[in-house]
Amino acid sequence: MRRHRCVIDSETSESGSDADSDTAMRCISCREEYLPRDAGTCKECYVEAGETEEELKREIDDLKAKVTFLRLSSSLDHGNSSRSFTDVVLIASEDAAGSPPIPAHKAVLVSRSPVFRAMLENEMEESRSGTIKITDISYDTLRTFIYYLYTAEACLDEQMACDLLVMAEKYQVKHLKSFCEKFLVTKLNLDNSLMTYAFAHQHNAKHVLDAALSQITENMEKVTKREEYMELVEKDPRLIVEIYEAYLSKQVNTAIGGTSTSKTG
Amino acid sequence: MRRHRCVIDSETSESGSDADSDTAMRCISCREEYLPRDAGTCKECYVEAGETEEELKREIDDLKAKVTFLRLSSSLDHGNSSRSFTDVVLIASEDAAGSPPIPAHKAVLVSRSPVFRAMLENEMEESRSGTIKITDISYDTLRTFIYYLYTAEACLDEQMACDLLVMAEKYQVKHLKSFCEKFLVTKLNLDNSLMTYAFAHQHNAKHVLDAALSQITENMEKVTKREEYMELVEKDPRLIVEIYEAYLSKQVNTAIGGTSTSKTG
Repeated sequence: MRRHRCVIDSETSESGSDADSDTAMRCISCREEYLPRDAGTCKECYVEAGETEEELKREIDDLKAKVTFLRLSSSLDHGNSSRSFTDVVLIASEDAAGSPPIPAHKAVLVSRSPVFRAMLENEMEESRSGTIKITDISYDTLRTFIYYLYTAEACLDEQMACDLLVMAEKYQVKHLKSFCEKFLVTKLNLDNSLMTYAFAHQHNAKHVLDAALSQITENMEKVTKREEYMELVEKDPRLIVEIYEAYLSKQVNTAIGGTSTSKTG
Repeated sequence: MRRHRCVIDSETSESGSDADSDTAMRCISCREEYLPRDAGTCKECYVEAGETEEELKREIDDLKAKVTFLRLSSSLDHGNSSRSFTDVVLIASEDAAGSPPIPAHKAVLVSRSPVFRAMLENEMEESRSGTIKITDISYDTLRTFIYYLYTAEACLDEQMACDLLVMAEKYQVKHLKSFCEKFLVTKLNLDNSLMTYAFAHQHNAKHVLDAALSQITENMEKVTKREEYMELVEKDPRLIVEIYEAYLSKQVNTAIGGTSTSKTG
């Protein structure tokens, strides 16, 4: 995003010769000369657009302050040595032997996840014992998951984004799922597109699925020569069928688009 | 804020006669004709500014979703019949006879207010009993105050904004204080400027104080004839002195500004 400095240099443009000022003008945003055919807006609209931008930035500042106010300090916050009135602990059962339980608040868990709500409000074992065991998850992932529930923040790499997306799916934390999906889309490339596609399929991550499918169908020749492709044909051929269906549909659309263009052209 | 529809009508402007297109152009934002002297930006900068605006709006949407995720459901939410695992109640002692106690979470109170933190973490009476009595406050104000701690939202009128500002000051909830100040500034007028000024003075509401002082010094003749002025002279003459000092300072600055303009002009 290039930033514009808003220098209104009407003096400069008016000090030029009259002959010149008819044919070339100076843009008051980028300050370069342009011809009438490249003209954008009048000065009034330029000023107004600048005001709109300022208003939007103020709104962003207000919302950021609101987020800071609303995020809760969790027992996981660095340097949080104060009492935090927790009433439940979570344990990552994968490495239950070594890793410590993570204290949390029932009120926060039920507020963020309908699954925790059902679990804790219905006097199930977890509610009575005050202990929630979570299977098939590492301590680090659980820690990051809980931290997100308090702060709406997480430090991600691709593995963590996948692990958290699975947790978000399981506990129906939509905001976190969308957060992970956005991250995974930015990390898509030719090398990981097939595995990401299969992963997205398995966990109903539509946003990632569409992006991966688009990446794959744009590089069909290369993708179909990869080892993961052969593996997926063996393991889950229906996924490969869907890829070919998307590829075919894209080709048909391109052909129709091409035809209609050549007709109207 | 006027909204622009972004219609790029290069065909329209190029279909005009060549003679015309040199002298008048059509703004691609408001679509009105303008002369070179009223030119704003080139087309490229116009497109780029539009992209920036879209980016800012996406950021606003993301932040709004984050706020929705982070706001906690409180026992005061309409239709909240679910268990909410509260561990403390607050009572508005002004009308203790009739009004019900308001259940809340210690974790939320300590997270939002350093005063509640000190009260609840240090095993004071309130922490042991699980009851916080708040003096000199109505049930409605307490309810609105607690609701704000959970949601960062409040429905204000001028009286409620003043009452909440006092609570925000007492419990050091900066975000709420700033929220009330912004509201009170929008409600400033000649009729309430003196009372608002005195109120802002009493509660260290600098933002409101400055706005009220500016309103007053711009209308000194009218203000000094008002009944509240006479009352304030009797009750707290130092406040009136500060008003005159601000008025004098403004007059001196205007005089200097006028002198320097006439020198350089």
